[in-house]
Amino acid sequence: MKFNIALLAGDGIGPEVISQAVKVSDAIAKKFNHEITWTPALTGACAIDAVGVPYPDETHEICMKADAVLFGAIGHPKYDNDPKATVRPEQGLLLMRKKLGLFANVRPTFTFPSLIDNSPLKRERIEGTDLIFLRELTGGIYFGEKGRKDDGETAFDTCTYTRVEVQRLAKKGFELAMTRSKRLCCVDKANVLETSRLWRETVQAMEKEYPEVEVSYEFVDAVAMRLVQWPNSYDVLITENLFGDILTDEASVISGSMGLMPSASVGEHTSLYEPIHGSYPQATGLDIANPLATVLSAAMMFEDAFGLKDEAEAIRAVVNKSLELGIVTEDLASKGAKAYKTSEVGDWLVANL
Amino acid sequence: MKFNIALLAGDGIGPEVISQAVKVSDAIAKKFNHEITWTPALTGACAIDAVGVPYPDETHEICMKADAVLFGAIGHPKYDNDPKATVRPEQGLLLMRKKLGLFANVRPTFTFPSLIDNSPLKRERIEGTDLIFLRELTGGIYFGEKGRKDDGETAFDTCTYTRVEVQRLAKKGFELAMTRSKRLCCVDKANVLETSRLWRETVQAMEKEYPEVEVSYEFVDAVAMRLVQWPNSYDVLITENLFGDILTDEASVISGSMGLMPSASVGEHTSLYEPIHGSYPQATGLDIANPLATVLSAAMMFEDAFGLKDEAEAIRAVVNKSLELGIVTEDLASKGAKAYKTSEVGDWLVANL
Ligand SMILES: CC(C)[C@H](C(=O)O)[C@@H](O)C(=O)O
Ligand SMILES: CC(C)[C@H](C(=O)O)[C@@H](O)C(=O)O
Repeated sequence: MKFNIALLAGDGIGPEVISQAVKVSDAIAKKFNHEITWTPALTGACAIDAVGVPYPDETHEICMKADAVLFGAIGHPKYDNDPKATVRPEQGLLLMRKKLGLFANVRPTFTFPSLIDNSPLKRERIEGTDLIFLRELTGGIYFGEKGRKDDGETAFDTCTYTRVEVQRLAKKGFELAMTRSKRLCCVDKANVLETSRLWRETVQAMEKEYPEVEVSYEFVDAVAMRLVQWPNSYDVLITENLFGDILTDEASVISGSMGLMPSASVGEHTSLYEPIHGSYPQATGLDIANPLATVLSAAMMFEDAFGLKDEAEAIRAVVNKSLELGIVTEDLASKGAKAYKTSEVGDWLVANL
Repeated sequence: MKFNIALLAGDGIGPEVISQAVKVSDAIAKKFNHEITWTPALTGACAIDAVGVPYPDETHEICMKADAVLFGAIGHPKYDNDPKATVRPEQGLLLMRKKLGLFANVRPTFTFPSLIDNSPLKRERIEGTDLIFLRELTGGIYFGEKGRKDDGETAFDTCTYTRVEVQRLAKKGFELAMTRSKRLCCVDKANVLETSRLWRETVQAMEKEYPEVEVSYEFVDAVAMRLVQWPNSYDVLITENLFGDILTDEASVISGSMGLMPSASVGEHTSLYEPIHGSYPQATGLDIANPLATVLSAAMMFEDAFGLKDEAEAIRAVVNKSLELGIVTEDLASKGAKAYKTSEVGDWLVANL
């Protein structure tokens, strides 16, 4: 098969981790007789520096034409802590999600047996955790009307959802639950918010189309608790954009392997794969960042975007092997053991595929 | 001194745990020569059942006249999972907060040495944790305009904040930080929300009035992570209503002693003290619920509402003693050890004050 992949390395450690995923993907393509064309494009702070906007039209066109997008990370400290900055890297991210119609962010949290003791949680709490959040990504308070009134003394943000937006996200949740343990948890704040009541009534109405799926409804504050107490009690969770932002990040640290968690954003025009970690500016250029989340994101791309399960499994297998053998970057290296460089981990994965 | 305390026992286990706090408060009053008048009033599901509304005017008048309010818990399963119910116990809670002007919810999370192994977190992660959230409680998306458009197909909620609302909450945060380690963390989502940008710029402008306080700004998703990773790195945190709802609940479980965490809500007209746990409907009437969070809320009341530090310390001391000696309800009892009843724990505290 032939693929055209848009390559958005982004800022900070983005380019370094993306390089490893490219190496591994190319090696897999060679092994399984595929042909990948990578088309690099600018986004984030580097795009602002180069052309003044964080998600240039040219980048958008490249993504729209691509079979999938592989994304690194964006963000730069020079844009932080300035509430009045008018152009920010994050705007590029939001614009990209909206323009590409990436309405569902797929965020798995799972554990690696060899890393379980890295978790801040006790072993018995975290063992067996394997959950997936589907976060709505192109609606809600992120994209509603916002602004100031009364000479800037009053600020407002509007959270809006339509039934159709809820349905298309929930549909993905039901379908995903059918391929797993058939349990779906709808996370909302229906005791307070009208948008949450729309979510809950829409999901309730869909239950009869999926009679095998057992649906539960939980308030966002309760889920924030149970994720720490009994993360292994969850399977598939669906939620709106802002709740998803908070809860998926909370979920990502319980496994103790944040540097390893991949993600996908899927939707109308294409799909995008990215590590969940940030641009880690302090490590830029040091060749020390953990590339595995990006490599595992490429595995998700092979499986979900191209339907190539064997290729994905081959990548996951070699990643597991590297973890077991301790061919890892400094964040995962045991005390006294050698810490490998970002590029060395990538090379090892390619050599051992 | 003489105090008039409004007593809102509420639903579920509310009345059982409140009774123990009343017993302990009366015993303390006797010991220190104070006189307490308790004025019971209805709120929550029991108020709906009795008079059709969850926060009756009569209850409001009793609270307004009181020197402080001691509150149990509200909520009943018959009102859950029904997004269309028009009268809900939670509305009573929100109305009460608004009408009493309780704009700052004070939510400490701390550990008890004897209970540290109850935490879902590893000992080295949780040890030393002693943080306080100040959650804004009468503004934001909880109280903004909400409703439906397009024949009910679109729902919206509005989050609004004024500079004055932010200032009065932040002022409490700065003042609290001055009495502690002089570190204040402002939690927002200023990379996305206009209300968060107002929060951040308002707090930034106040920094010069408190030159000794070291202020940090963190995004809500980052805090959701760090609370699990390094809770002991925080001291005082301030945040808006919805973020506070989620994060304070997350914080409450990390200590492993949720049944022990008290809270206060302070503001314009009076102050209210309540355990952070819910109404725990399954345990209603069984005399098994842990009364300590309510007893410790009464201690906060003595200290903060009445300025009686010795009285508060005496309550805390006897609670600590009960924990050390294992005079505890079933949620805290060690395997094989006797679990005491709610009322037995209360009696023991009174006898050992
Ligand atoms: C950078 C920020 C705008 C973004 C979000 O809030 O969606 C990030 O936190 C994420 O989760 O991808
Ligand atoms: C019951 C609910 C309306 C309430 C809230 O969201 O404020 C509760 O979760 C709380 O934190 O006191």
